[in-house]
Formats: sequence, C-alpha cells, structure tokens
Amino acid sequence: MKIENLFIKRTKELPSDATTPGHKLALKGGYIHQTGAGLYTYSSLGLRLLLNIEKIIREELNKLNCQEILMPMVSPASLWKESERYESVDVLLKFKTRAGMDAVLNPTHEEIISDYVRSGLQSYKQLPFCLYQIQTKYRDELRARAGLIRTREFMMKDAYSFHTSWDSLNEFYDKMLNAYKNIYEKIGLSKVIDILAPTGDMGGKISHEFQMISDIGEDTIYVCESCDYRANKEVLTDKDAEDILLCPKCGKKLNKLRGVEVGNIFQLGDKYTKSMKVEYMTEEGKSTNPIMGCYGIGVSRCLACLLEQSESESKAVFNMNIAPYKVHIISIGDETDIINYSEKLYEQLSNDGIDVILDTTNDRAGSKFANADLIGAPIRAIISKKNKEAGVFEMKYSGLKGEYENNINIDEVYNTISNIIKKEL
Amino acid sequence: MKIENLFIKRTKELPSDATTPGHKLALKGGYIHQTGAGLYTYSSLGLRLLLNIEKIIREELNKLNCQEILMPMVSPASLWKESERYESVDVLLKFKTRAGMDAVLNPTHEEIISDYVRSGLQSYKQLPFCLYQIQTKYRDELRARAGLIRTREFMMKDAYSFHTSWDSLNEFYDKMLNAYKNIYEKIGLSKVIDILAPTGDMGGKISHEFQMISDIGEDTIYVCESCDYRANKEVLTDKDAEDILLCPKCGKKLNKLRGVEVGNIFQLGDKYTKSMKVEYMTEEGKSTNPIMGCYGIGVSRCLACLLEQSESESKAVFNMNIAPYKVHIISIGDETDIINYSEKLYEQLSNDGIDVILDTTNDRAGSKFANADLIGAPIRAIISKKNKEAGVFEMKYSGLKGEYENNINIDEVYNTISNIIKKEL
Repeated sequence: MKIENLFIKRTKELPSDATTPGHKLALKGGYIHQTGAGLYTYSSLGLRLLLNIEKIIREELNKLNCQEILMPMVSPASLWKESERYESVDVLLKFKTRAGMDAVLNPTHEEIISDYVRSGLQSYKQLPFCLYQIQTKYRDELRARAGLIRTREFMMKDAYSFHTSWDSLNEFYDKMLNAYKNIYEKIGLSKVIDILAPTGDMGGKISHEFQMISDIGEDTIYVCESCDYRANKEVLTDKDAEDILLCPKCGKKLNKLRGVEVGNIFQLGDKYTKSMKVEYMTEEGKSTNPIMGCYGIGVSRCLACLLEQSESESKAVFNMNIAPYKVHIISIGDETDIINYSEKLYEQLSNDGIDVILDTTNDRAGSKFANADLIGAPIRAIISKKNKEAGVFEMKYSGLKGEYENNINIDEVYNTISNIIKKEL
Repeated sequence: MKIENLFIKRTKELPSDATTPGHKLALKGGYIHQTGAGLYTYSSLGLRLLLNIEKIIREELNKLNCQEILMPMVSPASLWKESERYESVDVLLKFKTRAGMDAVLNPTHEEIISDYVRSGLQSYKQLPFCLYQIQTKYRDELRARAGLIRTREFMMKDAYSFHTSWDSLNEFYDKMLNAYKNIYEKIGLSKVIDILAPTGDMGGKISHEFQMISDIGEDTIYVCESCDYRANKEVLTDKDAEDILLCPKCGKKLNKLRGVEVGNIFQLGDKYTKSMKVEYMTEEGKSTNPIMGCYGIGVSRCLACLLEQSESESKAVFNMNIAPYKVHIISIGDETDIINYSEKLYEQLSNDGIDVILDTTNDRAGSKFANADLIGAPIRAIISKKNKEAGVFEMKYSGLKGEYENNINIDEVYNTISNIIKKEL
C-alpha cells in the first residue's frame, strides 16, 4: 500500500475519556474510530491486527481438530428461555422482530450451540468434538470504558466441546489451556497468566481466566509466591478481607495484582446439555447428556491489550505475526533515483506477497518517521541520497525476536528483508 | 480432517419449506442448520465455503487498492436520523439500549461510513479511496424464503468509494464492475449477468445489479437479444405491461427472465455526503462534498446460488477455489495396508497445507460415495484392495476446469493430486 492511498483518521486532540496509553495510541494511530458509546469502527490498520490475531487463533484451534462454524448473532428468545437464562443475564439485549418474534442479540452462544448440537447428535461414536466461531457479539453494558477494553460490540472467539465423560473433558480442557498459552505468546501478549476463576453466570465446576497483568486492569488477582496458586479475588471465600488473604494451598500470604481478562475457559458439565435436552445414545443404548466445556477469547480485547503494552502512545510495537504491515519503506528527499529505488523494492516485496507500506511523499523526514512509529512495521528501510552515496541503507527494527544489522549494503536490502521475515514468522 | 471427527448435522427428513434444489442440498449435506426463521448456523462445511468466497472478494478488491475495515453492527439511531432514512427503511431494526440510547442494527452502512469518513477527511489530496467490509448484517424482513436466498441475518461485502468528481467515480465504478465479474467467475457462479437496476431507497444516479439467471429467481429481468440492453423490470417505465416491452435502445421486443440478485452497485453522488456533512477542501481552498459510490455483494447469497446450481440435491459441485475440502480420500475395506496407504497419503497432502478429508471408516462403500457427493471435494481418490492389486488407484473429479486421468499408477497418486491442485488454483 502506498501511504498516500491509505485512508486513516488520526485523532490529534484526544478526548478526555482516552486515559490509557493503548486507547490514546488507538486514536492517535488511527486504529479505531468511535461510532457510538462502546461502538467502534476498525480502520484498515485496526482490522489487519484483528485478522492477524484471528489467524493465530484458527491455527492453534485447528491443531486440536476444532471445527470452525458460524452461528447467528440474532436468535429466538425461546432458546434462552429453555436454559432459564432469559431473565438472569443482564447484558442480554431483547427485542421483537417485525414479524412478531421475541428475539435476542446473543452475548454468548451456549444456548445456540446446544440447539445446533442436539439437532445432529445421535451416538457416542460422534463424541468428543469441539466447535468454535469467531464472531461479533453485543453485550448491553451499562457503561463502556478504556476504548476497546470494555466495549458493547466486540469480536470474540467462542468454542464449545462435547464429551462422553469428565475424563474426556479434563483431557481436552488441558489441551485447550495450553493452546491458549501458545495463542497469547504468538500474538505477543506478554505477562498473561492463567488463574482460577469463578464460574459465575455460566455455571459448571472449574474455570480458568487468562489475565494480562497491567496497570489498567479491572480485575483483582491474588498470587502466591511460594507455590503456584493464582486466583481471581472472586474465587476466594474471604472476599472482603482485601489485604490479609492467605494461600489456601500453602498458607503463605497472597500478593494482590490487577489484571485485564483476555480469555476464560469453563468446565460446564451438563448444565446446558441437560436444560437444552442435548442427548446421545451410549454404547449400552442408554440416552444421556454429553459433558460440555466452553472456551472464550476476547479477540478485540487482545488487540486492546497489545496496544496497551506498546512503547508509548506514539509508538506501536508489533511482532511479525501481528503487524498490519511487515515492512515500511521510507524514501527521504525527492531525487528520482531514490524514489525509483524505493518503488522497485516495494514492488519486489509486494510481489512476494509481503504486506509493505511505501512512503515516497514529500512530507518532512521527521513526520514520516513519526507516522512509521504509529504504524509499527517491524522492519523499516530508510532510503536516502546520503545513504545511497555511502552504499548502505539504514534499517530500523521493532518487535522482532532476533537482532539484525542496521546498515545493509544496497544490493543486499531485498534479500536481507526477505530473510528476516522468513526467520521471524 | 478425518471424517469421523467432523460434526455435521445431516437432515434426512426435509422440511416442507425446503423446495429449491440448493436449499435441499444445504440441509441434506449439513451446510446449514436453521436456528430461527431466516436465522442460520453455518456448519464447518458451510463456513468454509463462505470463507473461500470472502477470500476471492478480498483478492479482487485489494487489487483496486480498496482497504478493508470493520464497522459496528449496532449504531446510534442519530446517524440514521441525519440522513433522514430512520423512518423510511422498513427493514431497519430499532431498539433502546440499557443505557437509554436509541440504537439500530445496521442493514447497510452508508450512514456509518459517512460518519467515519467525515471524521478523517480534510483535503482533496486524500481522494479518491474505497473502503469495504465483510460483515454480518440484519434486515428485519417480514418473510424469509428459500433457505439462504432471503434470510434475516446474512453475510455481506459492502464497499464505499469517495471521489472529487463524477469522472473519477465513473472510472472507479467501471473497474469495480469488472472486479465483480471476476469474483463471480472465480466463485464458479455461471449465468451471472450485469443489468441496469433501479436506484430505489439508496438514491443516486446509476445502478447495476448482478443477477444469476435461475428458475428460483425472484426478480424480473428484461434482456434484448438484438443489442446489449439488459435491465431490471423496475427500471422500465412501462412496468405494468408485462410481456410487450420494447428495448429502449433498439426498439426490438425484450425477452423476460427471472433472476436472483447476487450484487448491486450504485453511483450515489452526494446524497449521503451532503446530508451527513462529509466535506473536504478542494485545491482552490473551497469546502465541498465528495462524490460517493457503493458496492454490495451478498456473500451468503452467493453461497446459496452456488448450491442452487449444483448437480442435484445429493451432489455438490465446487471448483478448487471454493471447495471446503480439495481432496477426499476414500479407503474401501478394512485391510491394514489399504488403511495405512490412505493415511499416509492424507498426511502427505495435509503437510502441504491442502485441506483433505479422510474416510477410513467401516461404512459401506456406497454410503461413503454418497457422503463424498454431499461434501463435493473436486478430487476423490478411491483406495481399495482390488485397485492396489491392479497397481492403479481410481480417481474421480468434479468441478474442475481441466480433464485428468481416472486411473493413476499407485506411485504417482500424491504427485498427480498435487499437480492438479496447482493447475486448478
């Protein structure tokens, strides 16, 4: 993409509710635009981040034979009445269609997946399996906050697994927990820990949250430094005694941290399969309900957290998997041979299928660099007359795993960039 | 994917409203499940088709430098009041949020894109550009019909372009019209024609529809066989005189056809940019409204049409771009060496990143073939003891451009399949 063709709305005067570094960067860098309270438009930069996160999630889940499906966002209220959550879930948006049907905007899909699975499940031979979707959800929150951290509409990956036994669920649950760790690592979210979580509205037996430790966190977490106990405050029985909690495992004092939840997994058991009458025939010919697990990742929440951990509100840092553009070519000055060289490099890399951004505009060099900082391409090639005369071009890197040379021989620039990308992906 | 791990709901007793071949195939083959009236769940097979259609759309639009973004599905009613469409669009679903905001579920996004663009557009230097999204939309239709043909919730690609002049819009509009032709061709939708269309609710000057000629069409189209005139009935002034219409271009009698709309593009002019106050500064320093175009493709409608043109309600035909799985390996019999051979071939192809389905179950051969017909992989390899002894395996093909050998030497199966896929993609 040539930078002059890229339509980006850069917010210069930040609104007063933009208080976190990530929210400021999201607006300054033009990743998002607020369409309404808690309702955001993702620019091409923002969406590329989202799609790259989705790709990583798909890769990891497909390794576990999870099957991607897509359920409707709108569904009949009757399904929520069956599970008896129609009145109890406060973020559930209810409305009547023009055709007179009571409907909801689904904030989560346990009821909808149960309806789908009961329609196709017959025998124990079909179990276990796990279905997932990546989809826009709406939660009718009273208050939105911190840009993409708590929005009304958001992108979510929700997975649902079905089993003949608790053992089978346990085994799969552990695999999923590991897949989640891989996902956050590949996205580049550091400081994400898994902790014991309350089961809350969802019901079921065991639950884990994935929390990014951050100054902007809204959840209180307790961790034990003597053993591996980590839990959401809500799990501990002595919830009110803020600072004097003792580890239920080893008895030592617990440390308090604040976190942002980026994922949540649940062992639901038969809560939904029983109320929604999901049944299968066992090997012995008996009709019974499968054991169920569910697994959520806030895709847009991950994006928000990624921006929160950037270097500053003016400098985005993304790894090679995630970056909206992998290479940013900046030509300095208006000499024809410099511009030609930049365009040739751009064509070469683009032809290889690499997402490159090219800046041959006549903006000031400082403004081009500031722009590049907001876009956060891991590799930046600076093509200038001065450098050309010296026979080496200057490279800048950010977010990379490896260390690479900053001064590259002119004839080696294309090969060097190609090799770095191959190594980093 | 091993077929025993694939969770698919196959509807055996078709409901009475499933009257078209495509709707029957969608249910028999387990591509969709009806969650509510006009509200569908896509199985992994159905979703793979959708995602493959999306991929083709992205490729063609990105060639025109279109930038993919994502706008919210829910938005404040105030934006629709600004354009004065809040009362006039009957499929617009309105509701109040818990926080007390009047909101809508967007059935189309002219208002939302206008709000985004006005927030970031300053100068003529930024124009022209085109933004698009691929997103779930909800239209509060009174009646749904024919499975995926007319649903309430559906997947749509909507693009919006902005220009400094009608000339610039015209030029881009023609490019987009050609991109649409490429998209339908790549998807494998035959019999799609572009025709003059009414501007209707959208307003503006010129509009074209892309119509698939089909027995199940709901639109009436008139075509002239003497010249290239083709139009929706609604465009012709003499709408009521059903069968005696004459071509406005050459005066000859027009032929009547029925069509299913799979795309619609509009030259909107300044209808939205004026009412929504989208402005930019011209080279002469004057503030003015950009000229706008909009371009829609019904992604799930394309999927429905693809199923409608399949060979029968029991036999799906997809090309290599579109097929949910590219290769289907069917082993016949329970001999270990036959199963091992099938599994090895499956591993080899899967390791190359090819989507393969493997059936080594002990179902009857006839049932395996019927299953394969419903999944529609373009290449099917039949691995049996009888064939192994003869030294050649049997291949079946469907939906391919080229003609290929049906009997392949055992040692050549992997190479043959790899080469066919490379040729067809």
